Amino acid sequence: MLGEFDLIKKIKDRAYRNSENLTKGIGDDCAIIRQSDGLDSLISCDLLVEDVHFKLGYTPARSLGHKTLAVSLSDMAAMGGRPRFCTLSLAIPDHINDKFLNEFFDGFFALADRYEVTLIGGDTSRSPDKFVIDLNIIGECPSGAAIRRDGAKAGDLIFVTGSLGASAVGLILLERGYLPVEKSPNRIETLMNRAVQAHLEPDPRVEIGLRLLELGIATSMIDLSDGLSSDLNHICEESRVGARIYADKIPISDTAEATKEDGLSLALNGGEDYELLFTVNPQSQNLISNLDKDVRLTLIGEITNGSDVLLNTFHRSEALLPGGYEHFNK
Amino acid sequence: MLGEFDLIKKIKDRAYRNSENLTKGIGDDCAIIRQSDGLDSLISCDLLVEDVHFKLGYTPARSLGHKTLAVSLSDMAAMGGRPRFCTLSLAIPDHINDKFLNEFFDGFFALADRYEVTLIGGDTSRSPDKFVIDLNIIGECPSGAAIRRDGAKAGDLIFVTGSLGASAVGLILLERGYLPVEKSPNRIETLMNRAVQAHLEPDPRVEIGLRLLELGIATSMIDLSDGLSSDLNHICEESRVGARIYADKIPISDTAEATKEDGLSLALNGGEDYELLFTVNPQSQNLISNLDKDVRLTLIGEITNGSDVLLNTFHRSEALLPGGYEHFNK
Repeated sequence: MLGEFDLIKKIKDRAYRNSENLTKGIGDDCAIIRQSDGLDSLISCDLLVEDVHFKLGYTPARSLGHKTLAVSLSDMAAMGGRPRFCTLSLAIPDHINDKFLNEFFDGFFALADRYEVTLIGGDTSRSPDKFVIDLNIIGECPSGAAIRRDGAKAGDLIFVTGSLGASAVGLILLERGYLPVEKSPNRIETLMNRAVQAHLEPDPRVEIGLRLLELGIATSMIDLSDGLSSDLNHICEESRVGARIYADKIPISDTAEATKEDGLSLALNGGEDYELLFTVNPQSQNLISNLDKDVRLTLIGEITNGSDVLLNTFHRSEALLPGGYEHFNK
Repeated sequence: MLGEFDLIKKIKDRAYRNSENLTKGIGDDCAIIRQSDGLDSLISCDLLVEDVHFKLGYTPARSLGHKTLAVSLSDMAAMGGRPRFCTLSLAIPDHINDKFLNEFFDGFFALADRYEVTLIGGDTSRSPDKFVIDLNIIGECPSGAAIRRDGAKAGDLIFVTGSLGASAVGLILLERGYLPVEKSPNRIETLMNRAVQAHLEPDPRVEIGLRLLELGIATSMIDLSDGLSSDLNHICEESRVGARIYADKIPISDTAEATKEDGLSLALNGGEDYELLFTVNPQSQNLISNLDKDVRLTLIGEITNGSDVLLNTFHRSEALLPGGYEHFNK
């Protein structure tokens, strides 16, 4: 079967239709529909499938409810949008009981309340086998202001929020059966707990997305769900540019110390960090300091002419191939 | 575990939030969001799960693609809305190959083209087991004009489009292994083919929904997805009224002749007919004739005071209990 990105490309070609107020269809973090009152609507969906995106063995119900909404809030953040509404569809197997659902909704609504997102609809069904969750999020931004994937220009600087790789570390630990140590954890256990938390309950960068849109300085943006290597390639493809990033500048999460894996590789390919990757014209670089002081921002490289996406290491420059997760690849 | 409707009620109570431009949240065929340009957005989702909503053994891929969109178009029709955009999430197991997906999208886009609906986004994932499909549809109508479930008043007349029960007959035949006879079918085979077609590729009543909104005569409306008995009860609950319908007036599909099942029971409880059930003030009854002449309309009863939903048969009046399909009931 086709790889996930090939399948999406094929559907995208077939879905194309010239609709008067559709500004952007398939191919970005959100679709953009122009409303005639100075606002655009932003829409995005995320599917979470048991044993593909999460395992019930190590995923608390509350965390799953949180993550269901968090991954879509991250898509909204990646456009600079303000989340407003969502719909939720649940295919529920017999092994999910009322207690699990209650806790799932505790986590879900706690995050929804934080961002004042209203659940306006959905569908529920029995599922013969796996727990399947689909969330659609609807947000808004001033007309024409959404930060898209396709606006990066040669010479733009590439920034990333926070640090990368913690979610991948957390997943490795959870797969190994690690249970967070709650009573006086030592230094390594503290790192391990943080990694697990990053994987189970990612914190979407909604505020920084909104602030970037307000400042009007980001020429393109994407959230790091697939992994930096894949997501930077998405930006470059959509913007028809290349990029060069520097291995020694990538903000590798200190939680990488808790595994024997290569921290750089986890930061590049691990995925699910839900940080923001954005590009800025060098002339606007000084405005970056106006962003939230609490969020670490790192300059990791620059956009180039052509289509090569390169990783500079100490010794050499190599192609940065998409190494993030892709469905259907065998 | 809670029944489906109890679960939805519980989520609805928790989801409530006073949002400035949310006119209607959970509890109707679509949510309604007021835009400030004289239009309302209408949003609805439908989940289709393999071996719950369909079996691959008797469902052609093309029909499944058609039905995926058709059931949501029917929700849009039930509000009198014009469908505009949709998102589609697919959790795809190994037994779904590229050929199946191609045919699925043939059916999907054929119907999307007919109603000029644009696919603007979605998500795809591997599925460990079942094929799971979630569709969100977005439509519009003039502000405040959507036909809701909660507007029926005592004395209103109850109408239904088309005839009822064919989809249930089709499902029975398919479950028995019936394969449509394509070459010179006899009379019964013609009925059987029609029933199978009604189940596999329902025809949503989009035009009649739009026309009813335009005429402004429907006080409430719902589409018949769960079954007349359940869906009439939904109208009565939301409108806080009762109803009386007459067994001898219910337009039972002539395809019922193709099974030994009771046609009335199939028409009341079979579900998935995707016809429209709507109520009209008696003073507007003469305007009904302005509706599409090609669609059969039948007056089946009236809205009453109180909360009893009754079925009058030749001999007596009995309670019409929701007999349609409900998930999670064991």
